[in-house]
Amino acid sequence: MDDDSRDRPSAPVGRSERARTAALSAALALAAELPYPQVTMEAIAARAGVGKATLYRRWPHRGALLVDAVAHRNAAAAGSGIPDTGDLVADLTAVLRSVVDELADPGWDALLRALCVEALVDTGIGAQVLEQVFAPQIALFADRFATARAAGQIDGSVGDVEAFELVIAPVFHRWQLRTGVLDHAYGDAVVRRACRALAP
Amino acid sequence: MDDDSRDRPSAPVGRSERARTAALSAALALAAELPYPQVTMEAIAARAGVGKATLYRRWPHRGALLVDAVAHRNAAAAGSGIPDTGDLVADLTAVLRSVVDELADPGWDALLRALCVEALVDTGIGAQVLEQVFAPQIALFADRFATARAAGQIDGSVGDVEAFELVIAPVFHRWQLRTGVLDHAYGDAVVRRACRALAP
Repeated sequence: MDDDSRDRPSAPVGRSERARTAALSAALALAAELPYPQVTMEAIAARAGVGKATLYRRWPHRGALLVDAVAHRNAAAAGSGIPDTGDLVADLTAVLRSVVDELADPGWDALLRALCVEALVDTGIGAQVLEQVFAPQIALFADRFATARAAGQIDGSVGDVEAFELVIAPVFHRWQLRTGVLDHAYGDAVVRRACRALAP
Repeated sequence: MDDDSRDRPSAPVGRSERARTAALSAALALAAELPYPQVTMEAIAARAGVGKATLYRRWPHRGALLVDAVAHRNAAAAGSGIPDTGDLVADLTAVLRSVVDELADPGWDALLRALCVEALVDTGIGAQVLEQVFAPQIALFADRFATARAAGQIDGSVGDVEAFELVIAPVFHRWQLRTGVLDHAYGDAVVRRACRALAP
């Protein structure tokens, strides 16, 4: 369901979108403040100043709402995509440093761990995470890989998802399993190794 | 607590170890058969033919028991470690194909997803997974990397954990997030790319 106005045809245009944005912002704010079990639909509705029924008309459960919130926030943060200075290592290094910084933020860390749990427990949420959170990220990387491929900087036979995983998976693995320190130096080294692996 | 005999000094030597092995086997068998919420301490005790109190004396909760079970099973499966034919790509390819096959097993897949959830929700279990499941795997890889380093096949400046993550993280990421098909061809390509990245 894309619009509350289907249920309430007299609602002014834009009201539904404002309620949606308020709910997404409230969900992110609460997830940064509270342990995940306390980030309930009730709490999100109260913070957003909307009725709980309004939330449930759009999202079947808080997992769906939170995936949407993360995707919404990522889309806003992505701006014009991955920079293209012509230097693939430098551009990917800048991206990975932002990723490392985000994961170091306790509120964001807690929210993303909670989403991983939701995705592992419920394959429907897993599919939603893939489609709404990862696919847009992969598309941003794919644009940058296309330029690098055209410039002869990476092996044309490596697919976008494979190249994305080469860059992101070591950081994700270290973040999730805490196998070691996750800092800029680690992200930088991951990019250097990935670009060596991707070289033609 | 390492031994039930602390509580029952008259227990014959070996009895505690038999109870432990029975509990670990029962836990793995149940986790392969039942949805994780049904793999309770009660169910494991019943299958193992031991009292629930016996389980709780050794493991504070089923998460701890299951990590132990996976570690125990991995130790048995590891045998003499990663083969060393002198061909690093071939040897790591054989290992990753086994990993891919394991993850394709529905029972094992479900158990490992459940353990990921436990580790994400509880940092104590996370630390236990790292110590009992990942550290021994990293040690096996480290032995093989040492030989490869001595043979001048990999860059001496890359640490064992970093090299391990280069090989394992893309498979883990694809398995957990279902970003694409996880088959031997993918594992093979991951090894080829990792070895390019690790070359001196």
